[in-house]
Amino acid sequence: MNFSNRISALQPSVIREILKTPDDPDIISFAAGNPSPQAFPAADMARISADIYAEIAPAALQYGISEGYAPLREQTAAYLKDTWQMGGESDELIITSGGQQAIELAAKVLCNEGDTVLCEEKSFIGALNAFRSYSLQLVGVAMDGDGMDMADLEAKLRATKAKVIYTIPTFHNPCGTVLPLDRRVKMLSLAEQYGATIIEDSPYCELRYDGEAVPPLKAMDDKGLVIYCGSYSKTIAPGIRVGYAAARRDIIARMTVAKQVSDVHTNLFFQHVVSRFLDECDFNAHIKACCELYGKRRDALIEAMAQVSGLRAFAAPEGGLFIWLRLPENKTALDVCAAAKAHKVLCVPGSAFAMDERAPSRFIRLNFSMPDEVAIEKGVKRLAEVL
Amino acid sequence: MNFSNRISALQPSVIREILKTPDDPDIISFAAGNPSPQAFPAADMARISADIYAEIAPAALQYGISEGYAPLREQTAAYLKDTWQMGGESDELIITSGGQQAIELAAKVLCNEGDTVLCEEKSFIGALNAFRSYSLQLVGVAMDGDGMDMADLEAKLRATKAKVIYTIPTFHNPCGTVLPLDRRVKMLSLAEQYGATIIEDSPYCELRYDGEAVPPLKAMDDKGLVIYCGSYSKTIAPGIRVGYAAARRDIIARMTVAKQVSDVHTNLFFQHVVSRFLDECDFNAHIKACCELYGKRRDALIEAMAQVSGLRAFAAPEGGLFIWLRLPENKTALDVCAAAKAHKVLCVPGSAFAMDERAPSRFIRLNFSMPDEVAIEKGVKRLAEVL
Repeated sequence: MNFSNRISALQPSVIREILKTPDDPDIISFAAGNPSPQAFPAADMARISADIYAEIAPAALQYGISEGYAPLREQTAAYLKDTWQMGGESDELIITSGGQQAIELAAKVLCNEGDTVLCEEKSFIGALNAFRSYSLQLVGVAMDGDGMDMADLEAKLRATKAKVIYTIPTFHNPCGTVLPLDRRVKMLSLAEQYGATIIEDSPYCELRYDGEAVPPLKAMDDKGLVIYCGSYSKTIAPGIRVGYAAARRDIIARMTVAKQVSDVHTNLFFQHVVSRFLDECDFNAHIKACCELYGKRRDALIEAMAQVSGLRAFAAPEGGLFIWLRLPENKTALDVCAAAKAHKVLCVPGSAFAMDERAPSRFIRLNFSMPDEVAIEKGVKRLAEVL
Repeated sequence: MNFSNRISALQPSVIREILKTPDDPDIISFAAGNPSPQAFPAADMARISADIYAEIAPAALQYGISEGYAPLREQTAAYLKDTWQMGGESDELIITSGGQQAIELAAKVLCNEGDTVLCEEKSFIGALNAFRSYSLQLVGVAMDGDGMDMADLEAKLRATKAKVIYTIPTFHNPCGTVLPLDRRVKMLSLAEQYGATIIEDSPYCELRYDGEAVPPLKAMDDKGLVIYCGSYSKTIAPGIRVGYAAARRDIIARMTVAKQVSDVHTNLFFQHVVSRFLDECDFNAHIKACCELYGKRRDALIEAMAQVSGLRAFAAPEGGLFIWLRLPENKTALDVCAAAKAHKVLCVPGSAFAMDERAPSRFIRLNFSMPDEVAIEKGVKRLAEVL
């Protein structure tokens, strides 16, 4: 049997082997990108779910429309307006099956086979693989502690004629960087100048523990250049797969067609759950509680790492879920992660986030949302032994 | 902004305009493909959901794996074995976000741009659009009252070198046909001979009201030629978006990669709900109750139509949700559907199911699962007036 070229190119890698979690309660994992179950508003969701069954089961269990449950579209548009000063009506927004689907649909409606996508030189593997699955060419743009380098972006826009810039400007995965305001303004003007569309992936922007918020690119986009991909995975729960994209009306119309052939619509029952949660509960207070939980864990990780010589964070993370760690000169990520696994501590080698997974890396990614403070301290000690 | 070729080709059609349901309680719709809310096991689902929140909320709301919740894969494989004598272990099955996603992932992993897909000359619009969204060529195969014509299939396999045959062998949408056993055997041998893979779309096979079951193609497939796409949408509820595909291990592995980049995984909470429903409730008794409900509605529709001269069903439907109706000589489907809409009765013009939507059709599709017996009688009377 013949497989399509695009999917055959996606093969399981050595990295997956390293990430396979043995069934051992003593293992400490910094590897996952999961939010903490302690942050799930499960009691509210249980009450709301019972209400939905009691009041509107026939509607919530029936087929829905591909663009999403209308009140949730309105509430999400209102949230983006209130919190991020993002313009846009509810028909400039589509509810997706998680942020991942927002990215995948954006790629599907924008790109033909062989098109180039520019992205940070380290980036989110789920997005990279979505682009690869459409046979797109990935070209990495240089980064520093403030995220994507605008001079390199311009050079690569000129050289590649890329149609799409994929970026995680706020609490970058894996690097933890936040793109400063002036670079955001520059990126928008470059996109306009070179005729590119920006996919702004922003699943973590709510999770800020220090410092001042920087406006999303989409909030400054008066030319319709940006597709903003957001998610309730980190602020409510990921297992329900509810995210969204906000973009120009004609882009949303195309993404709606693409979503219809992909999964018809997002689980309607949980669109109702999220809608009622936003309506009945204090979403901002809930986000604040999540930030307190994760902020403490981030502090614990930074403090524990300070005791270990040779470890250095690429950027001091003001939010998000990850620290991107530079290893000592003589170490490579794959070796360190394999040795760490033998010492019952899991982390992700930097090569997993590269355009070319085979290139050696001197970075590893540590997640601090899943392990608690005690586990973090213990895990970093084990990591220190490995190093 | 440039859009991809594939999605630009999918434009809203005149058919969508006809299907737009005005907000009027007096309208009788034969247009939707929805199961009846009376068939949803909502009370069981409510109880099970409460249990899941009480017992395993952290797990059910967290990220899951792309291939699906392991117990549900096992239960679904066991169901397929018990009910349809289909071989296959749980790792030869993937849980998808509805049957639609099973079809879309199959197309994505099998086909490159420009490849040909053979299908019944009238077929399910969701599947056709999924294929179109990957820039595949659709070639229709002739049908009679027993479904796809095998001589025409062979001629077209020879002429097109198609890699994929897409078929709805049981209770075809829209035509209501059931492919007889001998044609199924022939289709398998043709697929083998011409090196094609069969996508067997089977969302309705559980809904049989008369006659004897015919084995799925997959149950007779000892060469790994078939991707079987099934769904809990018609037997539990569609809004939860839980379906599955059963196929060879290497195909499932590819589909898992494609699913990971599409939506990471299917709503995990409702994978748990379906799993517990299958475990705690009598699924077969529930299906039997659905069949009783729908069987009565089908009978009511056939009886009402018998009173109207000039209407003739293409095939007497032994199951499924639809009757495919041949219009009198001097009528075309678009005109009849538009006139019917003005008389507050909705049906779908046959052209919606054609390879070329612009070709005129003398058929309309009537759904009998949503309207009850009273509405069916009233709706057919209105339709008779239109004709």
